[in-house]
Amino acid sequence: MRTIAIDAMGGEHAPKAIIDAVLHAKPELKQTKFVLFGDEEKLKKSIPADQLDDRLTIVPTTEVIEDQDEPVKAIQKKKNSSMVVAANYVKDGKADALLSLGNTGALLTSGIFIVGRIKGIARPALMPTLPVENSDIGFNMIDVGANAQSKPEYLLQWAKMASYYAEKVRDVSNPRVALLNNGAESDKGDDVHQEAYKLLKASDLNFTGNIEGNELLLGKADVVVTDGFTGNSVLKNTEGTASVLIHLLKDSLLNNGFMTKVGALLIKNALKSLVAKFDTARYGGAALLGLNAPVVKTHGRSGERAVYYTIKQADKIVAEKLTDEFKLEFSKKN
Amino acid sequence: MRTIAIDAMGGEHAPKAIIDAVLHAKPELKQTKFVLFGDEEKLKKSIPADQLDDRLTIVPTTEVIEDQDEPVKAIQKKKNSSMVVAANYVKDGKADALLSLGNTGALLTSGIFIVGRIKGIARPALMPTLPVENSDIGFNMIDVGANAQSKPEYLLQWAKMASYYAEKVRDVSNPRVALLNNGAESDKGDDVHQEAYKLLKASDLNFTGNIEGNELLLGKADVVVTDGFTGNSVLKNTEGTASVLIHLLKDSLLNNGFMTKVGALLIKNALKSLVAKFDTARYGGAALLGLNAPVVKTHGRSGERAVYYTIKQADKIVAEKLTDEFKLEFSKKN
Repeated sequence: MRTIAIDAMGGEHAPKAIIDAVLHAKPELKQTKFVLFGDEEKLKKSIPADQLDDRLTIVPTTEVIEDQDEPVKAIQKKKNSSMVVAANYVKDGKADALLSLGNTGALLTSGIFIVGRIKGIARPALMPTLPVENSDIGFNMIDVGANAQSKPEYLLQWAKMASYYAEKVRDVSNPRVALLNNGAESDKGDDVHQEAYKLLKASDLNFTGNIEGNELLLGKADVVVTDGFTGNSVLKNTEGTASVLIHLLKDSLLNNGFMTKVGALLIKNALKSLVAKFDTARYGGAALLGLNAPVVKTHGRSGERAVYYTIKQADKIVAEKLTDEFKLEFSKKN
Repeated sequence: MRTIAIDAMGGEHAPKAIIDAVLHAKPELKQTKFVLFGDEEKLKKSIPADQLDDRLTIVPTTEVIEDQDEPVKAIQKKKNSSMVVAANYVKDGKADALLSLGNTGALLTSGIFIVGRIKGIARPALMPTLPVENSDIGFNMIDVGANAQSKPEYLLQWAKMASYYAEKVRDVSNPRVALLNNGAESDKGDDVHQEAYKLLKASDLNFTGNIEGNELLLGKADVVVTDGFTGNSVLKNTEGTASVLIHLLKDSLLNNGFMTKVGALLIKNALKSLVAKFDTARYGGAALLGLNAPVVKTHGRSGERAVYYTIKQADKIVAEKLTDEFKLEFSKKN
């Protein structure tokens, strides 16, 4: 049996969306136990009594880390928060993975300082799965902001973890790994990226060279490795640009007269299929890789569906024994 | 009188689009002379004979730097190319600005090594004007890729030049300057961005703090300063994301049945107004700031309209004496 520790108090729709997702996933994942951390009374109210069994249990906690809390302070002070208690549960070996919708900084801090990093991994890194225009598979980008400061050796380790993830969790065979850089040629970039290029080239990864910012959504790579600073700006920029465009499109459909409104009704299905293309819920959340157990973060505004997919993602990371593989791979270099 | 040196051979629609733009701008900019560099025979064929006068002249050149040419080598070998001859013309004081649609790397190299940088400016930087969702004014982003490696002091100089540009060329009073960073708090970022934040804060700029990648198109800043590596990835990512979305939208409008196609016809005007919002032609090209004369680059696929606005932009930079101002500002610190 596998066990997933779930912070049931984080996110805008907590605990309802989280409980619904667990009840949805439970009949499917028969080899998995779910432990929910949170306000016992509230949780019990939303869970049918006959569902609480040895595969679905509650660990009562009394505090909640809020989005506006300063991460490091929150972890230190709110010792009885759902997130911190769940992280300690994982640390103590009572669960195999941690899932939360809460404060991203606090979850990164909990992951790194409570769950702890794998020996031989210099820096854990945050990795979402993003959509591409021409397939349903998407691609992984690593690191998107766990590290403000990056070294070439970190990028090589991140690429290895992400490539293994793409292969085992997303079933991509021989994943194509590319380096986000400011040009296609091998000598592009600052010192960090020039050196990272050499390390990737010399590795046994399926390294396909540099990729530029305008090519990310074109499906040219299964894994894009980037320093955490650039990755953070680019990820946020993708979200921002898409959201502004969709907002402006809606605006122009509403403010260009009656015939346009009629047209808008007629293209509703087309728009839905477009939005579905950019629905990243089915990819699950962003995984913090390089820790003694997987820590998975999904968006604070996620609904039941996104949480459900994130549960399945965390479960598959555990089932495929990614942590064991990383321990084996990176400890031998020490 | 002001004089603009124009590389008439660069870009997909050369020399036609360039000549048309010059003929469009000429009656308006009565204080400006235009010197076209390129194949004399070709140019003469497209220019009505009575338009060739003391305000519109041709300097014949025999070579062209192609997009696929390696920048530094091209500059060294193609001494009689339209771009290199034009750059030397500016260097020799015979023109006040250089405009090209050609190879970006070669133009940056020509700018830095032929036109030369202003004493006191550590590194010239490339700065486009980008659209925002809620106004027609847009914002300037600097640097978007002239530098792969950036230091905090560079960012401060770039912010000063861009702020002055926004005020004088785009008529924005007291421009709001923000730093692209991985979070809102003042201690965010790697060493370079933490230090850049302090320098900007201590300067006499209207510094409004950090801005994140998702906020760029929201109109929160008139100038966004960024290291050239991140700026390059983010700029390209904005273009790539917008282009993928628009492509997918067109696709779903064509492939969702007859009624959707009827709807698509009805919303045509709305889509046009959306695309117009992201039409950056009216902002002109990207300016390479910090040189002894302004060098302005516009997209290789630009048509007459974009080149026309870029001519007006270059003319205004000269009219507002930006180079003199930069020389005054930055030389006193040496």
